[in-house]
This record gives sequence, C-alpha cells and structure tokens, in this order.
Amino acid sequence: MPQPEAAGRAEDVPSLVDAFRRTRALSEGLAAPLSDADATIQSMEDASPAKWHLAHTTWFWETFLLRDRGSDYRLYREDWPYLFNSYYEAEGERVARGRRGMLSRPTLAEVLDWRAHVDAAMEGLLGDPECAPLIALGIAHEQQHQELLLTDIKHALFQNPLGPAMWEGNDSVNPGEGGDLGQQGWHSHPGGIAMIGQDGEAFAFDNEGPRHRVLLEPFALSRRLVTNREWDEFIADGGYREARLWLSDGWAWVTRHGVEAPLYWREGEQFTHAGWQPRDPEAPVTHISYYEADAFATWAGARLPTEFEWEAIARGQHEGDAPAHNPAGGNQLDGASPPLPTGGAGLFGDCWQFTRSAYLPYPRFAPAAGAVGEYNGKFMSGQFVLKGASCATVRGHSRASYRNFFYPHQRWQFTGLRLARDI
Amino acid sequence: MPQPEAAGRAEDVPSLVDAFRRTRALSEGLAAPLSDADATIQSMEDASPAKWHLAHTTWFWETFLLRDRGSDYRLYREDWPYLFNSYYEAEGERVARGRRGMLSRPTLAEVLDWRAHVDAAMEGLLGDPECAPLIALGIAHEQQHQELLLTDIKHALFQNPLGPAMWEGNDSVNPGEGGDLGQQGWHSHPGGIAMIGQDGEAFAFDNEGPRHRVLLEPFALSRRLVTNREWDEFIADGGYREARLWLSDGWAWVTRHGVEAPLYWREGEQFTHAGWQPRDPEAPVTHISYYEADAFATWAGARLPTEFEWEAIARGQHEGDAPAHNPAGGNQLDGASPPLPTGGAGLFGDCWQFTRSAYLPYPRFAPAAGAVGEYNGKFMSGQFVLKGASCATVRGHSRASYRNFFYPHQRWQFTGLRLARDI
Amino acid sequence: MPQPEAAGRAEDVPSLVDAFRRTRALSEGLAAPLSDADATIQSMEDASPAKWHLAHTTWFWETFLLRDRGSDYRLYREDWPYLFNSYYEAEGERVARGRRGMLSRPTLAEVLDWRAHVDAAMEGLLGDPECAPLIALGIAHEQQHQELLLTDIKHALFQNPLGPAMWEGNDSVNPGEGGDLGQQGWHSHPGGIAMIGQDGEAFAFDNEGPRHRVLLEPFALSRRLVTNREWDEFIADGGYREARLWLSDGWAWVTRHGVEAPLYWREGEQFTHAGWQPRDPEAPVTHISYYEADAFATWAGARLPTEFEWEAIARGQHEGDAPAHNPAGGNQLDGASPPLPTGGAGLFGDCWQFTRSAYLPYPRFAPAAGAVGEYNGKFMSGQFVLKGASCATVRGHSRASYRNFFYPHQRWQFTGLRLARDI
Amino acid sequence: MPQPEAAGRAEDVPSLVDAFRRTRALSEGLAAPLSDADATIQSMEDASPAKWHLAHTTWFWETFLLRDRGSDYRLYREDWPYLFNSYYEAEGERVARGRRGMLSRPTLAEVLDWRAHVDAAMEGLLGDPECAPLIALGIAHEQQHQELLLTDIKHALFQNPLGPAMWEGNDSVNPGEGGDLGQQGWHSHPGGIAMIGQDGEAFAFDNEGPRHRVLLEPFALSRRLVTNREWDEFIADGGYREARLWLSDGWAWVTRHGVEAPLYWREGEQFTHAGWQPRDPEAPVTHISYYEADAFATWAGARLPTEFEWEAIARGQHEGDAPAHNPAGGNQLDGASPPLPTGGAGLFGDCWQFTRSAYLPYPRFAPAAGAVGEYNGKFMSGQFVLKGASCATVRGHSRASYRNFFYPHQRWQFTGLRLARDI
Ligand SMILES: [Fe+3]
Ligand SMILES: [Fe+3]
Ligand SMILES: [Fe+3]
Ligand SMILES: [Fe+3]
Repeated sequence: MPQPEAAGRAEDVPSLVDAFRRTRALSEGLAAPLSDADATIQSMEDASPAKWHLAHTTWFWETFLLRDRGSDYRLYREDWPYLFNSYYEAEGERVARGRRGMLSRPTLAEVLDWRAHVDAAMEGLLGDPECAPLIALGIAHEQQHQELLLTDIKHALFQNPLGPAMWEGNDSVNPGEGGDLGQQGWHSHPGGIAMIGQDGEAFAFDNEGPRHRVLLEPFALSRRLVTNREWDEFIADGGYREARLWLSDGWAWVTRHGVEAPLYWREGEQFTHAGWQPRDPEAPVTHISYYEADAFATWAGARLPTEFEWEAIARGQHEGDAPAHNPAGGNQLDGASPPLPTGGAGLFGDCWQFTRSAYLPYPRFAPAAGAVGEYNGKFMSGQFVLKGASCATVRGHSRASYRNFFYPHQRWQFTGLRLARDI
Repeated sequence: MPQPEAAGRAEDVPSLVDAFRRTRALSEGLAAPLSDADATIQSMEDASPAKWHLAHTTWFWETFLLRDRGSDYRLYREDWPYLFNSYYEAEGERVARGRRGMLSRPTLAEVLDWRAHVDAAMEGLLGDPECAPLIALGIAHEQQHQELLLTDIKHALFQNPLGPAMWEGNDSVNPGEGGDLGQQGWHSHPGGIAMIGQDGEAFAFDNEGPRHRVLLEPFALSRRLVTNREWDEFIADGGYREARLWLSDGWAWVTRHGVEAPLYWREGEQFTHAGWQPRDPEAPVTHISYYEADAFATWAGARLPTEFEWEAIARGQHEGDAPAHNPAGGNQLDGASPPLPTGGAGLFGDCWQFTRSAYLPYPRFAPAAGAVGEYNGKFMSGQFVLKGASCATVRGHSRASYRNFFYPHQRWQFTGLRLARDI
Repeated sequence: MPQPEAAGRAEDVPSLVDAFRRTRALSEGLAAPLSDADATIQSMEDASPAKWHLAHTTWFWETFLLRDRGSDYRLYREDWPYLFNSYYEAEGERVARGRRGMLSRPTLAEVLDWRAHVDAAMEGLLGDPECAPLIALGIAHEQQHQELLLTDIKHALFQNPLGPAMWEGNDSVNPGEGGDLGQQGWHSHPGGIAMIGQDGEAFAFDNEGPRHRVLLEPFALSRRLVTNREWDEFIADGGYREARLWLSDGWAWVTRHGVEAPLYWREGEQFTHAGWQPRDPEAPVTHISYYEADAFATWAGARLPTEFEWEAIARGQHEGDAPAHNPAGGNQLDGASPPLPTGGAGLFGDCWQFTRSAYLPYPRFAPAAGAVGEYNGKFMSGQFVLKGASCATVRGHSRASYRNFFYPHQRWQFTGLRLARDI
Repeated sequence: MPQPEAAGRAEDVPSLVDAFRRTRALSEGLAAPLSDADATIQSMEDASPAKWHLAHTTWFWETFLLRDRGSDYRLYREDWPYLFNSYYEAEGERVARGRRGMLSRPTLAEVLDWRAHVDAAMEGLLGDPECAPLIALGIAHEQQHQELLLTDIKHALFQNPLGPAMWEGNDSVNPGEGGDLGQQGWHSHPGGIAMIGQDGEAFAFDNEGPRHRVLLEPFALSRRLVTNREWDEFIADGGYREARLWLSDGWAWVTRHGVEAPLYWREGEQFTHAGWQPRDPEAPVTHISYYEADAFATWAGARLPTEFEWEAIARGQHEGDAPAHNPAGGNQLDGASPPLPTGGAGLFGDCWQFTRSAYLPYPRFAPAAGAVGEYNGKFMSGQFVLKGASCATVRGHSRASYRNFFYPHQRWQFTGLRLARDI
C-alpha cells in the first residue's frame, strides 16, 4: 500500500479544514462499533490493530505538524511515539510490527482522548497556508489507514469462530453508478504514447510521478470486473489444482497453504464486516492474491493489464472522445458502513485491480527528503501495482495516477481483477 | 503444570460451598484491574488470555457439573465450548491454543455474565454429596488457572514498552513466616526408604499417586532459596557464557536466544504486576528455566534435589522429630494482590522449585477414566517436576505430594531453586 | 546415545591390542560397500556422514592418545580436528553439526589413509598399561560410532528414490539364540531392592554408575519383543488416529508429521541395508519413536518398563535361581553385514528397547574431568533411556548397565519395545 | 536464471553438430576436477549438485530429442527421469529440489556413462534439420547449466572450512578486450524510442521477445563496472549500517542475516574456484544481491539502469555511429578453467549486471506450448532482470536481448553492477 509520506501540494485552505475534520471524524466512526478488545488485537504481522491505526494517524499529526510546526506544543505522552511510529527510521525506534497486538494500553478510550487533544491543537494550524501541503498529506495518510483499519479488523474478526459482525448489515452499501457485470465488453486502445503519472495539479504521492510518456501496444481492457460466479467456474474447472496455470511461486504458495478459494470464502458464503453472509455470484470477486489473479487470467485466455494500460483507459486517452473515468465514482466508502463489493460501471470502486506491473520507480523519481519523505521508494521491490479503488477506499482518495501495491501472496485487502488482452 | 482433571475425594460439603464461592470470587478479583483489552491479549502460545481463563474455568463447571449432573441445564451459549475447551480431546474440537488471543468476543463483560449465570446454577448442586468430588476438583482446577492467569497476564503486560502496572504496589504482600535467607543451612537426611505420594485422605490429582516407597541416599537440602544476589554473582562470574556449566540443550537455548539473565530482569529492576520495580537482592530469584537452575547448581558446586528428596524433607521424614513443613505456610496468594517473592522459611511459598526429576508416572499410576480423566498422564514426557508453591499459588492449594511440571526452557512461572547436595 | 568419553577401567593389554585392531578393521569393513559420495552425504542434523564417523573416531585416537600421550606425535593435518571434533567444547570450535554433509574433502580415500597412519602410530601405545583405560574407552567409542554409521547411512540411502542397497542380501544375519516371538510369556519380579548400575569391574561409561539400590514394585516383563505383526494390528485398529492413546507431545508429533507407520515402512516392505525388502511379520518391530512405543503399550493394556526393572531382569535378580541374560547373546553385529532384526530369546539384541525412564543422573553421579570427561552428563534432559542392544550393536559392546538414550521423537535407530505390566 | 525451454530457431546443421559436441565435452571438462563426493553435495536449495547438472542436461536430450524424436530409443534407466527432471510439471513427479544432494547414486561414473550413451544415440539425430531447433535449445540449455554448475560448486566448496580449490590457479583467465576500470566514463543516450528484444534471426529464449518499442528518457550508463575498491569504500562509509540507503526488504535481509560484505569475502581475500585468494581491488565486485546493488547505487548518488536502457546501449542505439557492444567479447568462459572477474571494456563479461527492471513479460509474450515450453513465463514474479554475461558464461551464449533473472536476495551467481543516472 502506498505510504503517504511524500510532500503533497496545498489545496485551498477552507476545503482542507473541512476535509481534516471529516477525516478525523470518519476514523472514529469506523472504530465506533469496536470494543477496546476488538480494537487491540492483531491477527498477523501484515495487519495492525484498529486502535493502533487511530493512534498512529494521530502520531502523524502530532509529529509532523504540531511538533515540527506548532509553537510550544508539548507531546501528549513522551513514550507514545515509540508505540505508534510505523516504520520511519528517521523517527527512531518503535515497537516491532508483529507485536502491535500486545498494546492493551493505552486503552481505546485513552487513544480517543489523545485524538481529541490533537484535533483541538490542530485547529490552530489548519488555517496556516504553509502547513497546507502537510495537512493534505496527513489527510491522505489517514484515509489510507482508514482502509487498512477496515481490512485489518475484518481479518481479525475472521479469526474468531463466532464470526462476529461489526455492523448489522449491508443495507447502506452504495452500488455506485449502476452495475453491468452481466455483460462482457471491452475498452479498446489503439496503442501509442500514453501520458502516465500525476500532473502535479492536485495532491498525489511521490511515487505517482514524475509524469512521463509510455509507449503502449494495442490492447483491450474489460469493462467489468471478474465476478464470484466466474471464480466458481474457475474452481469447478480445477483451477487451483492445475500447475500449468500458475506462476511458479504461486504454485508453491497454493500447495504450501492448501489454498482452494479466495480468502473469506466458505461454501456459498463469505465473511464480511457484517459477519458470514451469502455470496452474491454477480458481485466482483475479492480477496484474491496476485498469484490467483494471474492464474485466473491464464485460465480465461486473457492476461492482467499493465498499470499503464489501466491508467490510459482511466484517463480516456484511448479514443478521441472517450471520457475519463470518474475517480470518485463507483462503489467506494462514503461513511462508517460495511464495505462490500457489489459491482458497478467505471474503473474505480469495488476492489483494487491487480496489474502485471511491478511496483518500481518512474523515470527520474526521487523520494522526498526527511522523515516525511520516507518512503514510498523503499518498498520498490517484490510488489505489484494495483489500480482503481475499493469499496473500502474513502471516496475522493484515489485518482488515475494512484499506485497501490502489495506482495503477490497478500489478499486481505479488497483485491480483484479486470482482464486485459492484446488486440 | 498439573492438570486437575482427575477425580478427587469429596471434602465435607459445607466447606466446599464456601470454597467454591471464595474461589469464584477470587478469579474475578484477580481480573478486576484488567481492561477488556488486557484480558484479551495473548503473548505467546504457552500463555492464555485472562479472559480465556475466566471463561475456561466456567466452561469446566458448565461441562462436567451442570451439563453432566444438572437436570435440564441448557448451555449458556452453544458455540462457546468450542472456544473455551482447553485440550480435552474427548470434549471435541477447540480453538488452536496459539489463537486464543484472537477472541475479542465474547467481551470480558459477557464472560462475567456467564460466570454469574453458572454460579447461580451451581448453587443447586453445591449441596449434593455426589457432586462433592467433582466440585473439589473444579475448585482445584480454578485455583490452578488463577496462578496461570497471574503469570500469563504478567507476561502479556511485559510485552508493552510502557511497562503497565496492574496493581499499584506490593504493600499487601505477605512474607509468610519470616525470612531467613541471609544464612545458609541444610536439612539433612540419612537416606533410606521414603513414603512418596498422596495418602488418599485429602484431595489430590491423579499424578500424585499411588503412594509408594522410594529409596533415598543420604543428602542435604538447603534451608533457603537461591537469591537474586547469588544470581547476580553467577552472572558476574560469567555463568551465562561458560558452556561447561550447561546441559547441552540448555547451552543451545542460551546461545539461540541470547539469554543473559532471568526473565523480567533489566539493570537493577524487575518487571512485576506493579510494573518495573527495584529488585531486592535478598529475595529469591524467580523466572528462571530448568536449564538455568541446573547451570547455577553446577556453578555452585551443588545440584538440584529429586522430587523425592524434596518431599521427604517437606514431610519431616528425615529425623525422628522433624516437623513437616506447613504447605499452607510461606509467601502464597491470599487474595487479589500483586504476587512477589520475598523470602520466607519453610519449603512452601515464594516460588516453585525445580527438581532434577523428570515428570513421569509413579508405579501403578493409571489415569482416571473419561474426559475428566484427561490428563495429567498425557504430559509425561519431556518435562521436569517442580515442588512447593509460589507467591502466586492460592494458599491451601498445594501440598507435599503436589507435582507441578514444566518444560526445561519455560520460565514465565514463578520458578526458582533450592540447592541440594550429597552427604 | 551414550557418549563414551568417561574414563574406563583398563582391561588386560593383550586383549586390548586385539580388540583395537578388530575394531578399527570393522569400521572400514562397514564402510567398504560405500562410494566416496555415499560416505559424504548427510540426511539430517541427527545423522552424520559415514566418512565423518571414520574420521571422527580417528580424531579421537589422535587427540586423546597420540597427541596427549604419544611423544612427539605430530597432527596428520592441522586443520582436520576442526572438521571432526564432535561436540567437545574443551577441544575448541568445530563444523556445525548440520553442515557435516558439506565435507566432500577430505575424500574417503584420504580419510582411510589417515586411519592407516594413526593405526600405525597407535601400535607404539597399545602395549602401554597406562594407556589401557583410554584405549578401552576409544574402542567403546568407535563401537558406538559403528552403530551410528550403520543407522546414519541407512537413513541417507533411504532418501534416494532408487532405494539403493549397500549389501546384497541378509543371508549373513545371525538370529542369535533362536526366536520365540510366537508365544507370549513373562519374566516376573516380586519387587524389592535391586542393585542398579555398573559394578566397576569391567569397562563402563560414567553414566552407568555409581552402582546403587533402587526399590521396585512387583512387575512382569515380556519374554519377547513386540513384532511387526502386532504393530500391523495396532495400525489396523486405528492406533495412529486415536488421540487418547498418545502422550500430548506424541499426538502433536503424529499430526504435524502425518505419521502413520514406523520409519522405513511402505506396504508390506521395509527399507534395509539391502534395499527394500519384504517385511517379516514375526520379526521385532523397529524404527519407532518413544511416542509410538508408549502409545502401543497403552493400546495393548500394558506399559513400558523402567530402566531399573529391565536391568533387574537382565541381571537375573528376580528369582533366586534366574540366570542373568547374556549381554553378548542374541542378534547383534558380528561383522560387516546387513543388520536386521529377526527375533531371539534373551533381553539383548535385535533392537534397543524403550524404557519409561528419563535419562537422568544416578545418585552421586559426577562427570569425569577434562575433555574426555565430556559428557554423558550434559545430555541429561529431555531424553529417555533405552536398554539392551540392537542388531547393529557390535557384540560385546553392551551390558546390563548400559544406558542408551534418545529424544522421544527420534526413530532412525533400531528402536523397539518390550512390554511390562504391574502384577 | 532464464530457463531455455522455449523453442528456438534452427541454426545451420554443421555448426550445430560441432556446437553439440563441444558443449557436451565442456560440461565434462568443468566437472573433471571434481570427485564423486564433490559432485554429489548440495549446499542449499537454490544450488544443485554438479552431478545433477551433468545428469539433468542429459535427461533433457534423452527426453525431448531421443524419446520424442528418436525412433525406438529406450530410456537408459527407467527410474532416472524422476531423479533428474528439474521442474517440468508436464513431465511428471521429481525429487524435491532441496533433496538433490541425497543422490549419492547413481555415481558420477554412472552418470558419465549415461552421457556417453546419450551422446552416441544423439549422433543419429544431429543431422536432422527438423531437430535443429530443439538441438539449438538443448545446447543453450546445457550452457546455462554449465554456468550454474560453476556457481553451485563454488558455493558447495565454500562451505568447507578447508577452502578446497577446484583448480590450481587463475592463470588461464582471459581479461577480454582490456580493462579500463580505473577511469570513469559514461555512455549517454538522448532518449527516445528503443527497439527491445530479440529480432528473431538467431536463437533466443521465448522471454526475449517479442521485439517491441520502448520509450526512454535521456540517461547515461557507466562505461565500467563497480569495483571491489569502491565497494570497500561503501563498507568503510557504513553502507551496511545505514537504513536509509536500503530498500525496506533489503534492510530486513541485512539485519536478519547480519550481512556486512559481499558473499565470499573475508578480510582482503575472496573465495574462488582456486580456493581463497587475495582480492584485486581493481576487479569488478561480484556476488552481491539486488538489495546491495541498489543500496550502493543510492550511496553513490546514482541508480541502476533499466533493462531497456542497458540493451539500448548494448545495441549501440544511442548515437548514430555508436557501435554495438560485442556479446562475445569481454571476460567470459572459454573452457574448463576457473572463472574470475578481472574487468574489461564492453558491456558483456565479468559479471551479470543488475537492472531495476522486474522480470516480467514483454508485450504479446506467450510461452511456447508443451513441456519444452515450460517455462520462462512461470518465473515472472518477484525477480529482477540482469543483463550482460559473466566470467562463467560460455562465450557465445549471451546476447543483447538476453534476460537473466534472480530474486533480490540471491547472490551466489557472478552478479555485479554498472551505474546509471539521469541526464
Ligand atoms: Fe502510516
Ligand atoms: Fe484447565
Ligand atoms: Fe564420538
Ligand atoms: Fe534445466
């Protein structure tokens, strides 16, 4: 997952003030259904406790805004930064990532108090234009952690044989602009030079630039995501038992872990933030690894798109009159409600979509300086880029240039796939 | 640790009623300082969450008394036994031991409600003489889990860099019958036949019998426990760096884990239920492994006693007029307060004392039948016997025949040592 | 396995000279069917390459006799002791145990040259009475490694899907004093005081003493070993799937490794030094772990004997006129031929027999001083004692007081069991 | 490492005959200094025994030529394909990769007999034009295994504390076209469209195509490789202790394994096929991981090139009159002699050069069909592309389009780096 630690551009101050407040409130809203214990447990090293997310995002404001920019701000607790620094080497030692679940103290209530304290202190900086870039960054950072909070707590609750629900149901799910998963269809692109990467006019992470040209061959990108129904066919056809469909590392992963289905599947059900629920065959498949996505694409006689192909389509570069896809459209997160893929038009929403592009630096990429500049760059080995946005992504957070990234075996995010093919 | 699952003898009913109520209340008293999150986390596979102990002991009453003996009792929750069965194969599947820390639900409050419900239901059985043996067993079982709750939560809180305190201080510690650790002295035994094991008159676990004869050679057993001061000397003399002092497995353990001191030590401090505290050099050393105890004894030119030697002294069998040591004496647990070794006369209290006896069946030992009969016997490989009682053992729980047992590398219990030598 | 590093008693010199030469020749005879590559590979950390055994035993003579006692002997190669020291901390650093299979150099031929060189140099010491104790020790040491060489190479060849044979057949197997496995029968013992341990008149390892008294309860020991046929019944009865039959650690071992049969079994065959061969149902079962032995005994309604019970019977202490069992009898190793359990009378031969006694020091045990005195003592945790001798034990090596020892999961030795029961 | 299993183009038959014979002879020449034991051992899962390489390459000819194309050829041994298939799922089961070192049988001599048998049988097919593409492929395949044989045996001999030499010295090393490492200098490229991938006129692996266009930004590529002297400076400047220089995965790798220098370094020496030798400070550094290469480039204020940049320079596409670099030039393998980086002009030879390009499919890439078509494609996740050729690459094997690939932590190949920078 991209790490929002690079300097962004300032947006106009009033909207930042509002965005700050809404973002802070949303984090708390997402955690509202959780008990202190729910918010404390950690199910695996990749995932962090919900409380840790609440605290870490607060540490970010305290460290990079209040401490560095605020006059005479004093740390709320001297020994908490050690607990809630994530991986900023420049910011000193920290709790080992795999031991974050040991922090029963501070309690959830204490962390919420800290949040209120920091929010109050931040009010003094929100109007300062010099702080605007860092505030934009802090908001984007907290939005990322909101998605992680949702996927991490889902994984934690899934460990419990009781299958606890965090919310009552999925009534509030917004299916976005209307689903069309029933029919296949393709966006086609004639090939040629595409402009890739952020244009520098709005906030973006350092890894989304510099903007540069990429040469594409003709290709087509599916108008819709792969569905649960199709995945069931893949399984029924022996997809998980056929070595020739798989990358070598993927086959080793399947056999070592006995993988037979996407994460969170059992019989006709899937685990959701609302507990175990029937699985909608027409909804997009999610919680698959890169290995699975690649094997499915091979089985389907197609392939995964590159990140550049995906972005070119998203920007509407393929036809003279093709409209850009709306990054704020589709099934994304609008509030504290259970995220669930439902299927919708457009390239954004429902699930992050694997590309066959390794997560690597763009030409002339250079990480920002200082601790805030840590690091998208330092994760540039072994991971793959995902594009789009998921049902757990705060609407407005993503954009065509956004580069999400995960290791090929990871699948606790809302990850899915959209097929591509050569034409 | 012995598993109190074998049938015990009935005690007279009135005292059982009282003991039941006091025991149930003490469990809740011990957990009272804990938040829901404190009570949920699990620091390692060997340790269980405090909430799990509260629930598992309740599951024991519900399963073996209310369900099996109570007329028309219905399970409080159908799906909780799966969560809170420990290792009774005969009682079906259960949550993997290392995943108990994932159970944020049921909450601590819900578990306490369950406890109240079961306590109320138990009132109807407490007066039934037929149930007395199982009730005695259930009490002993819960007392064991009280000690584990204390040692497990200590280990969990220790993981937190904040070093949280569960209680304010150690004022309420009871040093028992008075310390005499300053002066060495030896109980000597002329050798001969000792009577070992429970005599069948009071409650005991199945592994404490049958009572049988053992032939002893002349030996002496120290009148006091090894102290922190002595352990400091062992360290200063290079004890942890001298391969020749160690068992082969012990040396591998020391080098693999970089062990340099007892668990919970740093500088002049030790971690306690009251947080980090100065270490009393005159107090008994605790939280050492068998490997460390054995290496220390070798360094000191002595050895560890056998379980038989220890028991013979405890029973006063060594001299015509030697009094038996009082199993209810010394520094043991009298209520919900922070346990801490302080040093006292007698063989009981402060810490469990390693013997060089492997934990094996006594002649003619046979495990009790049925699920309740699971199992002290099934743990009879690879472990060592410890005798006595610790500052975290409920006073009255232990006795001369009591056989505690742990693997030679484990040290999160209040474990210490008392030297022996040949004479 | 006991480590023959404690000082022994001198035997009379002429017989030592002969024993030395025969022992050295036998080692080479055992390795004769092996290629350089066969002799180099190592199948697991517990096992050593055949070449390593040939070299390590030579290192022993060179180090403790020629270097320490021989005037102006110079090391054959200055850098070989580092390679072939086993675990004598006092003798310095050495190749990690798990990396012994990396020593393609020196070659087998070079090691044999070294052996010849050392043998020649030893001739000058063989007649020296002062060296006699160390020579007796060196012989015993090399005999132990002969058994290990046989069991280790068997395990190594077993890894090869070709199932290579080291010898052509088992024609030369000596079934000893005649088999009587078809009929059950029991040696009974009335209980009382047994004299245990070496009497000091002949060579023995330090861990076999001091001789001391042990009090026994009445018991019976089977006149015969458990057979392959009986083990097949155990399997057919679901023995490997029935948790209640197993020690807790044993059940974890069975499930983790998917154990379903003794090592080296497939269908009706077993792997031997002569490759895959039909399995004789009337022959003693071998290559089982302590866990399996214990589970079988439980299934059979019996138990394993203690080491003391076994020794008392072996010594004929149980009846006024019972003869001692002949330690040099039964199916043991008489030369360079494929060892195979066949079944015979007497307590010695065919396979080492598990006892339920942990491997612990006898009263007043003290290890010998110096490097040679390393170490039987340092292995005294976590292992179990085995008694008797196997078909791979050089005849004459074992005795009633002999204590072999292994961890409860190990089974690449010729390990089997003889049942016991209370009477 | 690329797997030469894709169909190649036929070369003219006479040169193939000669190439076949020379290639087969070279494999045997490389193994000539090895004993049966040397050729049998396996130092890690990534490396295979030398004997295995000799056998596996022979299996390739037997399976894909003699069995599939030869009339009435019968397998030399029915059970050897199981042993020497590498990873062709379509060709059935095989020995686990990490257990190849257990194959003491067949012996080296038996494998050489097999080679002679297959060579003789192959004579009948060498003149068949229909077989030419597969023969070209078989030769390329065997050449790859020659490099692996050299790097694998180096790693195996390195495990031996004796530091055995496989050859006497490095006198026969060919420094190629003359070294110029003393002076820095850059090839510059103005950017624009480069033609990447094999042009289809000569043999190439499937992963080198299809040929396609890539858009480059202006850049410069160093005229020389990084040297041991420069690496010493990196070390002296704390390069291995400075987290900010490293990729996140790289830093975890450094700290977990305590990496402080390239593989095979100690003091002023390095381990070579001729044993421990003084290290030439002016020679190119080798045996580094991608993580190290990337950290060095960051430290040096430069970066690694992409595979496309490297290829564009190698093809002389950057200037109107720039000559292509000679793929058959530089320090490469000309016969059975110890490979050693010495430094030379040109982009080929001495060591494989890391690029920052992940190993991924080119546009419109499709793997060849059938077992021979397994698989370069199946390794396309998690690895990085290396370009050039090393001192252990058979001269003539490599080309500008060649894509070698390894995981970022691997460094037992002759891997080094050539810096690049933006201009
Ligand atoms: Fe963060
Ligand atoms: Fe329990
Ligand atoms: Fe030895
Ligand atoms: Fe190959």
